[in-house]
Order: sequence, then structure tokens, then C-alpha cells
Amino acid sequence: MLAPGATIGILGGGQLGRMLALAAAELGFKCHIYCPDPASPAFDVAVAKTVAAYEDEAALAAFAGAVSVVTYEFENVPVSTAVFLAGKVPVLPGPRALGVAQDRGAEKKLMVELGIPVARFALVDGPADAVRGVAEIGAPAVLKTRRFGYDGKGQVRIEVQEDAGEAWDEIGGQPAVLEAFVPFEREISVLVVRGAGGASAVYDVVENRHEDHILATSTVPAAIAPEVAQKARAIGLKIAEALDYVGLLAVEMFVVAGAGGTDLLVNEIAPRVHNSGHWTQDAALVSQFENHIRAVAGWPLGSVDRHSDVVMTNLIGYAADNWATIAAVPGVRLHLYGKAEVRPGRKMGHVNRLEPRSG
Amino acid sequence: MLAPGATIGILGGGQLGRMLALAAAELGFKCHIYCPDPASPAFDVAVAKTVAAYEDEAALAAFAGAVSVVTYEFENVPVSTAVFLAGKVPVLPGPRALGVAQDRGAEKKLMVELGIPVARFALVDGPADAVRGVAEIGAPAVLKTRRFGYDGKGQVRIEVQEDAGEAWDEIGGQPAVLEAFVPFEREISVLVVRGAGGASAVYDVVENRHEDHILATSTVPAAIAPEVAQKARAIGLKIAEALDYVGLLAVEMFVVAGAGGTDLLVNEIAPRVHNSGHWTQDAALVSQFENHIRAVAGWPLGSVDRHSDVVMTNLIGYAADNWATIAAVPGVRLHLYGKAEVRPGRKMGHVNRLEPRSG
Repeated sequence: MLAPGATIGILGGGQLGRMLALAAAELGFKCHIYCPDPASPAFDVAVAKTVAAYEDEAALAAFAGAVSVVTYEFENVPVSTAVFLAGKVPVLPGPRALGVAQDRGAEKKLMVELGIPVARFALVDGPADAVRGVAEIGAPAVLKTRRFGYDGKGQVRIEVQEDAGEAWDEIGGQPAVLEAFVPFEREISVLVVRGAGGASAVYDVVENRHEDHILATSTVPAAIAPEVAQKARAIGLKIAEALDYVGLLAVEMFVVAGAGGTDLLVNEIAPRVHNSGHWTQDAALVSQFENHIRAVAGWPLGSVDRHSDVVMTNLIGYAADNWATIAAVPGVRLHLYGKAEVRPGRKMGHVNRLEPRSG
Repeated sequence: MLAPGATIGILGGGQLGRMLALAAAELGFKCHIYCPDPASPAFDVAVAKTVAAYEDEAALAAFAGAVSVVTYEFENVPVSTAVFLAGKVPVLPGPRALGVAQDRGAEKKLMVELGIPVARFALVDGPADAVRGVAEIGAPAVLKTRRFGYDGKGQVRIEVQEDAGEAWDEIGGQPAVLEAFVPFEREISVLVVRGAGGASAVYDVVENRHEDHILATSTVPAAIAPEVAQKARAIGLKIAEALDYVGLLAVEMFVVAGAGGTDLLVNEIAPRVHNSGHWTQDAALVSQFENHIRAVAGWPLGSVDRHSDVVMTNLIGYAADNWATIAAVPGVRLHLYGKAEVRPGRKMGHVNRLEPRSG
């Protein structure tokens, strides 16, 4: 167990790194943030910062020497960076989880290995693959780059087979996965936290609504039957076990009407704290951020119990300019990320609206 | 209203300053901490720090130039410091509240002016006053320095009149207040937050238990009748109004059996966030820290609603060495202050234990 006063290194300086640092401070830890962007909002609440590229081995070595453990706030940290650091200091979650999560192909393969349902898919390495893929799995379908996709970036929808080649060009002609379009009833996510000793806990299942491919709201509890929630939790735990995961793991799923009832299809996993877990800051005793810190510090996990019902709404782009109005709404807790510049589509903050627990 | 991204200056770098800075960060503010102690725990979560004496006018002027508003985390900041800063930048709560709170004599006089009951008392400026005072108000009594007392420091109990002169020597022969010993049923505190526009709100009344003059536990709700709670809240609001207060004000009171029922005697006020309000971090939607920041930033106040019952227990001195055990207790939220050195009597952290709301 890492003693209070120790320094935790965080790769990435965005809002997730910032909220991790705030949670770490509540437990008496110091944080050192490593991020190439000199305007990273996490710097403002950390003891130390390194502004350097993820490929800068001298900077990485100095960072490793200054911290007791390294974690990360986003899944596009190069695996080579994680591997380099892991030679010098514990890196949690481990590089394997990072590698799987940043490659949609590897992610799908893992699900298949684990017997976890996913949408029909085909790996695509060229325009001919794309055309053949649509023939196999049908249209509409979505072509997604295997790597570096987020918030709908790096994906294009294919309505008819003839557009497959063009779609390949549109995503930049890079390794991709073609996925059958899923006519889902709803989107949910499961937040699993797993400790270094293998103990794990799952927060109540979250129902998510996206707008323009960006998470708009998360509602807890999700409007799903208890047995569906139970199945979702079991899937999350199975993935965390398979990856020998340490930290907070988010698993996004589609709820679909299947032949024999409700089915769950895993959409993607995120090896980090997740936007759909921001409700835990105000409606659970211990937040996803603190539980991630607890896990990577080798601490026992904190309670994931939820004391209130909650709706989390993201403040995206200029929506955050309404902070003064939002701050005056009763029963709402406002979180702002301290980002200097507002840009369309940029996550600037979120609000949690609590209601007494319904059951 | 201070816009997110602005810098808030905080005088004092202890745990209260640290928790204020964490709350400010959640609203997108930056913090600049001013404290003479180079090992201040609040420095670890702030954008900027100044290590200088409270009398260093050059350092104070530079600090004032770097921030949009100044607040403080403890009431022993010299009033002259607050007045100096207030000539350059808003200082909230205002220097008057600070002056009253740091002088037990001024505090008593204000209560008398407002018609708020306090224990029988006498102002003491020499050993003869002390002897006469005990004759007037009876023994046992407590002689307390007018200034710089906290956690039982600067006070001595007088059992018989003959000890009064010795008590005067014992507290260092400085201006003092002699107070009748109050055989209280319980100790409570009221946390009032008042905004710049005069709007105010009061958290649920807290019941406090001290050990060795240091706060040990705070329990909410307090075991008092609703009409007593209502009276306590009204007293808190009256004091805040009288001081034209902006920020979080704590008022400590004794609950005593009076001739016609239950009486409340005000013990002391603190013009700052208060240890007995730490429960608000986990059992209320908006904590005392965030509400203090909202008030000094000119924002509307946040909800003081409480969603759970709660007992806050301080971790004092070596009790914090049990962090690993405490971290494993279910249903408990641990807060540690990041202080490098454990000392007996030093506040190192606290825990909040939640239960579902009883009513």
C-alpha cells in the first residue's frame, strides 16, 4: 500500500487527470502530471508537472524517478511509453489493458475469446476488405479506425455497399473495423473497479445518451431490468478479470432486443476513469476517481454504494458559458474543468442533478 | 460574479485552505495560497504560493495584484493584514468579522448588543479584575485570553476564587475574558453561509463532542428538538446579518437546561469554514468549502440540503497512522490533509461515516 504523502504520476493533463489529482489529494497523495500540452488543466491542482512528448525518454525517465506509481487518464498514451515506464516504476492499469483498449481489433478479439457478444464485425485493412465486409455483415454499417478514435472521430457510416471504398478513404485509409449498425434500445455503461489483490466492485449501471457522438447525459439508475443490470455487471467483471486489471475500467454496451429477450453487446472499453462515471462524485460515497486512485495505490477499494438518483449532463463547448445560470439552479452540483479556451465540442464541465434514491 | 478561471487568494495554508482550494478547483477557479509556513499542505493543490510573513507588505501587495479576491482559512490573520489587502482587492469575509472573531471581548459585546445569550462573563485586564470577576460570576469559571486562543490553548479553569490571580499569570498576563463554567447538555454548531447579495442558508445543526479541548466528533442531525434547532439557526443568521458577513460563518453554542426550557448560549464564532462542517463534504450536495468559495466569488449559494445522516470523526495526531485500517472500513469516507509531520494534537485528517437519512 502506497502511504499518504507519496507522489502519483498521471499521464495526461485533461479534466480526467485533474479530477484524479483532486481525488488523490483528498487521500493525502501528491500528484505529478505529465502532458505535452502546456495549458493542461490538471497542472493547476498538482504538485509537479512535466511538459514533454510521450516519446521523450529522458523526460519519461525523470518522471518515473519522481513518482511511486504511474497511471493515465486517456487510452491514447503510446503503449511504448507505458512499457518504457513500466521498466522503472509500476504502471497501472498495465500496458496490456492499454494495448487492447486502443485497438478496436484487439478489443473485438478479446470479447470473442471471452464469449462476450459484440456487434457483427469485420477487420478491414484495405478498400476491398471494406466492400467484402459490408457484403458479409450487411448495411448500414460503421467503419471505424482501429486506433485513436474518440467522440465519433475516425468513423463513418456506410449506407450502401457501393460507398464502402469511399468510406475507407474518408477515414484516412488506415486499419479499421467494420461494425454492423446496432439498432439499440439504449446505451449503458458499467464502471468496474478492481484492486491490486483482485477484489472488485461495480457501480450501479449507467444509462447514457449521446448527441453528435459525444456523451450528453448519464442517468442512474438505468431503465433496465435487474437481470439485465446483473448481466452487464458480470460482463464488466469478466473483462476486468481477463485483463488482470487494476483501476477503474469502463465498458460501454448496447441494450438490444434479441430473439430470446434483451441482449447486451459490448461496444468498447476504456482503461481509465470515464465520463459516464462523473455522477459518482456526488451520488456515491466514493467516486470513480478516488476508487481508481485507491486501486493504483494498492489500497482497499472504497464503497461504490449510491445514495441518490442522479442525472449527469455534460457542458460541451459554449454551453459552459451559462455557468452563472447553472450555478443558481437548486439541487444541482456544477463541475468546471478550468480550461482556458472554449471550443465547439470541447468538454468544459458537467453538472450532477440529484434526486432522492428511488429504490 | 467572479468568472471561472479567475484566481482566488487564500491566507493560510493548512487543511482548511487546502480543502477550500480543492473546492475552488471544482468550480474552475485557480488558487494562490499565502502562508508563512513553507510546508503548508494547501500549496500542493494550488496554482501559486507565497511564503511570507503576514506583515510583509511587499509580498502582500504582490499577492493582491495576482488575485481577484482574498479570503482566509483561519481567524488569526492580523486585522492589519486584511485591512492592507482590502485597500487593493476585495477581502471576504470583511475585516470587521475578522476583528470581532479574534477578540473574545468584542465577540461577547456583539452578542450582548444583539440580545443573544452568552455565559455570564467579565472582561479581565489584570489580576484584580480576575478576582473580582470570580466574585461576580461565581466559580468554577474559565479564564480565556481575548486573542489567539484555539483548541483549548490560552485558557485555564478556576475552581476557587483564590486561584484567580494565579490563573491570570498562567495565561501569560494578557487581556482576557472570564466566563462562568457552563454545565451544558450538549455542544452544537451552526454553519451559516451568506452571499454577497445578502442571501443566506444554514446547514443542518451539528452536535459536537470535544476531547482534550479538540473537536473529536460531529454528528448530524443533532439530538435536539426542532424548535431548538430553529432557534440555533436564527441566532446564526442574526450574527451573519449583523456582521454583513460574506462567506461561511460557524457559530458554536452550548445547549443548557434553562428555567423555562432549553436555552442556547453562544460560545464563539469562527469567520471561516469550520471543522464541525467537514461532514458537508460527503453528506450534503454542496460542501461548506464550495459554499464559502461561491459566496466570496459573488456566486449564488449552493444547496445546503443533506442527503444522509453522518458522523465526522477527526484523526488527531497518531490516530492518522491507522489510515490503512480506516481505508478498509465499509461506508466510511477518509480525508487526509497531506501533512508531512505527525504531531500529538495535530489534525491530520477526518472520516465521514454515512447512514441513510433518518428523517
